[in-house]
Amino acid sequence: MTRFDLHPQLAADCHLIGDLPLSRALLLNDRRYPWVILVPRRADVREIFELSPTDRGQLLDESCHVGEWLMDAFGGDKLNIGALGNLVPQLHVHHVVRHVDDPAWPGPVWGHSPAEAYPEAERAERLTRLRRGLRLR
Amino acid sequence: MTRFDLHPQLAADCHLIGDLPLSRALLLNDRRYPWVILVPRRADVREIFELSPTDRGQLLDESCHVGEWLMDAFGGDKLNIGALGNLVPQLHVHHVVRHVDDPAWPGPVWGHSPAEAYPEAERAERLTRLRRGLRLR
Repeated sequence: MTRFDLHPQLAADCHLIGDLPLSRALLLNDRRYPWVILVPRRADVREIFELSPTDRGQLLDESCHVGEWLMDAFGGDKLNIGALGNLVPQLHVHHVVRHVDDPAWPGPVWGHSPAEAYPEAERAERLTRLRRGLRLR
Repeated sequence: MTRFDLHPQLAADCHLIGDLPLSRALLLNDRRYPWVILVPRRADVREIFELSPTDRGQLLDESCHVGEWLMDAFGGDKLNIGALGNLVPQLHVHHVVRHVDDPAWPGPVWGHSPAEAYPEAERAERLTRLRRGLRLR
């Protein structure tokens, strides 16, 4: 059995929030959007349908938990969920809180424009808020 | 209880494949990508987390059924799944078979370029194939 290792591109682009029962929760390092990525800790999985039925259900539960909390906490106008993986094949599911005045609205965030990294203090505050809100600490 | 009516924009942009137990399955009218949209037949739902737990599980099952069949039938390199809804708020989930030589690869298909409508004979053939493959007829 192959071990789960986070894809190096995800590790480079994100900050670790913590681990849910199935998924590693990451904060994308782009301060323009509240943007959480869930990565099921399963090796060599690219598609949701490749997960076992139990894991699929768990991913769905974690996705809804994260999505609903994010929308409430950040007062979003719409949640965008996406599992693309054209560049990073390791299965990962984006959860992006959208606002009608965000830079990419109403288009998709993927491929829109380069990320704007969090300044250190803002990143620390955001991670603390996410860990508390998602009960990861 | 409000009745489910398909959003007029989805009706305009898609061809009806048929109804799964929960979702209406639509073919996006863009011949460049095998692209199926699932719309849960529930009124006034915008987000997956707003569905009941039973409906969420059913949507997941239908999404995996459709996604796996599409990838197999069309020999896709990657499946892209997305629930955006910035323009059309009615909950709908995109399933797009991606190929490394498709026009938008490796970027997202959403917002990339105008759709290329199916010629009539090709559309009829595609719908027949989808209905048979997804056991909708």
